[in-house]
Amino acid sequence: MTAPLSPELLARFAALVAPQDVLDEDAAAPRLVEPRGLYRGRGPVIQPRDTEQVAAIVRLAAETGTRIVPQGGNTGLVGGQTPDPSGAQIVLSTARLTRIREVDPDENVMVVEAGVTLAAAQEAAVQAERLFPLSLGSEGSCTIGGNIATNAGGVGVVAYGNMRDLVLGVEAVLPDGRIWNGLRRLRKDNTGYDLKQLFIGSEGTLGLVTAAVLKLFPAPRDLATAFVGLRSTNDALALFRLVRQRAGAALTGCELMPRIGIDFTLRHMLGTRDPLDAPHPWYLLIELSSPVEGGLAGRLEEILAEAMEAGLVSDAAIAASVEQTAAFWRIRMGMSEVQAREGGSIKHDVSVPLARVAEFITEATAAVAAFAPRARVVAFGHLGDGNIHFNVSQPVGADKAAYLKSWSAMNAVVHEVVHAFEGSIAAEHGVGRLKRDLLPGVKSQVELDLMRTIKRALDPQGLFNPGVILD
Amino acid sequence: MTAPLSPELLARFAALVAPQDVLDEDAAAPRLVEPRGLYRGRGPVIQPRDTEQVAAIVRLAAETGTRIVPQGGNTGLVGGQTPDPSGAQIVLSTARLTRIREVDPDENVMVVEAGVTLAAAQEAAVQAERLFPLSLGSEGSCTIGGNIATNAGGVGVVAYGNMRDLVLGVEAVLPDGRIWNGLRRLRKDNTGYDLKQLFIGSEGTLGLVTAAVLKLFPAPRDLATAFVGLRSTNDALALFRLVRQRAGAALTGCELMPRIGIDFTLRHMLGTRDPLDAPHPWYLLIELSSPVEGGLAGRLEEILAEAMEAGLVSDAAIAASVEQTAAFWRIRMGMSEVQAREGGSIKHDVSVPLARVAEFITEATAAVAAFAPRARVVAFGHLGDGNIHFNVSQPVGADKAAYLKSWSAMNAVVHEVVHAFEGSIAAEHGVGRLKRDLLPGVKSQVELDLMRTIKRALDPQGLFNPGVILD
Repeated sequence: MTAPLSPELLARFAALVAPQDVLDEDAAAPRLVEPRGLYRGRGPVIQPRDTEQVAAIVRLAAETGTRIVPQGGNTGLVGGQTPDPSGAQIVLSTARLTRIREVDPDENVMVVEAGVTLAAAQEAAVQAERLFPLSLGSEGSCTIGGNIATNAGGVGVVAYGNMRDLVLGVEAVLPDGRIWNGLRRLRKDNTGYDLKQLFIGSEGTLGLVTAAVLKLFPAPRDLATAFVGLRSTNDALALFRLVRQRAGAALTGCELMPRIGIDFTLRHMLGTRDPLDAPHPWYLLIELSSPVEGGLAGRLEEILAEAMEAGLVSDAAIAASVEQTAAFWRIRMGMSEVQAREGGSIKHDVSVPLARVAEFITEATAAVAAFAPRARVVAFGHLGDGNIHFNVSQPVGADKAAYLKSWSAMNAVVHEVVHAFEGSIAAEHGVGRLKRDLLPGVKSQVELDLMRTIKRALDPQGLFNPGVILD
Repeated sequence: MTAPLSPELLARFAALVAPQDVLDEDAAAPRLVEPRGLYRGRGPVIQPRDTEQVAAIVRLAAETGTRIVPQGGNTGLVGGQTPDPSGAQIVLSTARLTRIREVDPDENVMVVEAGVTLAAAQEAAVQAERLFPLSLGSEGSCTIGGNIATNAGGVGVVAYGNMRDLVLGVEAVLPDGRIWNGLRRLRKDNTGYDLKQLFIGSEGTLGLVTAAVLKLFPAPRDLATAFVGLRSTNDALALFRLVRQRAGAALTGCELMPRIGIDFTLRHMLGTRDPLDAPHPWYLLIELSSPVEGGLAGRLEEILAEAMEAGLVSDAAIAASVEQTAAFWRIRMGMSEVQAREGGSIKHDVSVPLARVAEFITEATAAVAAFAPRARVVAFGHLGDGNIHFNVSQPVGADKAAYLKSWSAMNAVVHEVVHAFEGSIAAEHGVGRLKRDLLPGVKSQVELDLMRTIKRALDPQGLFNPGVILD
């Protein structure tokens, strides 16, 4: 079905919600383009206000064979939230499913709707003196529904796991329009297949999650943050291991940055300054936090002194104030954004076995140097998870459009190294449309068949997010 | 298909393995009865030696429409591993898939085959100075494959999660006989649907897991264990919360026991003695352990002193030696077994939201008292997970067979309270055959339909473990 929706059909959908909940052209425009402009589409954007309205829309879609593109905060980086240009697809936005239905600090759970932003969910936890530990760059606009659909990662995974590990139950509208209430809050439940796992990480292709029960954690009472200069990624890995050994569960953040990323940030982000006096080839941002222990700053200082003694660390600064802590993190969190200011950037969101992450960066960098000698590798990210954003900025002064034409070829160069390391080419951002056609190169036929079997079983008409993950 | 396998067909299956890998009648006998004798069946028991042999057997089964009952250590408590009496089903045993393929302490993973016992897997981790934290009563004979199939729980869940949380990848033979190699060892991988989740907890109904990549953890360097006497389950819950608040991630065990369970144990287990001088209505076995911290015994002592001060704790003993630690745990781990020595016991493996676990025990006990005034409630288990083994022993001197006739009626009484608390009637043992017919009473039609949809999609012939979870 590639013809645009007829006005009659559109009117039937519109009648299911209040008039202001079907966006007009101007309001819809920003929802129809992916944040980096890689994908643009057309189609009505409908914003139901509750689960019943979602179900009514999906029932009508099922009856009329209308395809649905679920959309949360529209921050995804793989085109999973963007309709195609046909105008035949409906964007089903969760923007008005914003109720925090319950926060229960006693039980350490909260029940939130899909359209609640991650920042709002975090804040609701803080208000109850708890922690919701998922944290990532776009947390101000990305939504819990999108976090679930993509099994979001971010900077807290090293201690708390991915979104999958933080969800106790979900409520979802199935592709036939029925509502499944799986909003359980149990820590143990083996009554049959764990169906919520199907919806987590399936990028909106099996139905729409409308609400979820999330795990809460005790609020941290102490926090220590260090900005550490290092000679090499090997030293970074060794330092990560030392800190984990010495600090155990208190290690709640471990982010790798290269000097070039610091340079970009200092150049383009107002009010940033280098926390260390001299430049270093690599950096780790290390965070210790704990709901129990005190004296973490002293502990971190001791660990870093031991690491310096062992020749692992060149220089380090421990944040002395809340402001300094925020300044350290601002450098890390700005590192994606500033790359756009340096021209074209070809992205790779990859992971490898943790023990090989340093070696991977070396080899992938060499492969890129052979392919595009003047291109600038900016490899940064979640060292403690083996997850590196291996981005490659264009050569200084090159033509952006010409450079970006090498996107696929550059991908092939980097992904070949990922493959040799038995890694993942979609570690935390998902597959979407962007990497869909790469999957057959990295998955067995058996695995692709299994995915198609699941998709056909749950969504036999292929209505939900067609073209995402599978074609 | 309910006629026994023909000798010709049996010979075709037997030809796929070595002669000694098809058990003779004597050797097969113990594999055809469930440990408590609740289920007995017939049929050949075949023990393939590698994944290829498993695949060949399953291919022949798919070709001939032969049904397969996967079996690990035959320790399951819900009849999920027992064939029916028709003789038409093959028991596919993992008993000879016992290779530990790899232990990688650097990466904190190990790759083990399905038939490796949990104890052997734990021991392999210890040899590499690591911890594999799953721990449960039958660990000497239950297998990793069974632990995965049932999403096993046990005494470490409060700190490390269920089996689902400990598996990074699986290798499985699908119902059509194809092998899926999903033995990944990545901490982050969002390349499409997370298919391993389908096999974890599906009780052998969607295929046979032949090997898995398991997470390892740093070995504990310090350990402190207390046996605590308490007045009530409310106090037990309050103490759990206090310890969690004060000890954080170091709280790695929190097991509830009632006085009657202690009495049973002292009466029937040789060499046990009461760790406390006087009897108390309730007990908690509390374990702190850490790969980092020292001084945990002192810490635990302080926490218990604070709890005594607050009037929460009546008396407590902290283990002063390895022997004493083992003695404390022996009381807890023997608590299932000793109930058999007191006549019939009607079992309920239930969970409720954690904040309501004390209240649940009170209400369920009252409901049982109303239904069977002289029956003896033995409610014990994993307080920190809200998971209670709510077992009911027969009245003293009653007729066992007559008492056990009230199994279903007693279940109904207890499960009604579970339902009122929004709990689970199968918290960690699974559904199997035992609770299959209870599922429609606790699951929505939508959820049951989803499960059937998944089952039909992956196993359209219904060959794998028919009658388990779904009918």
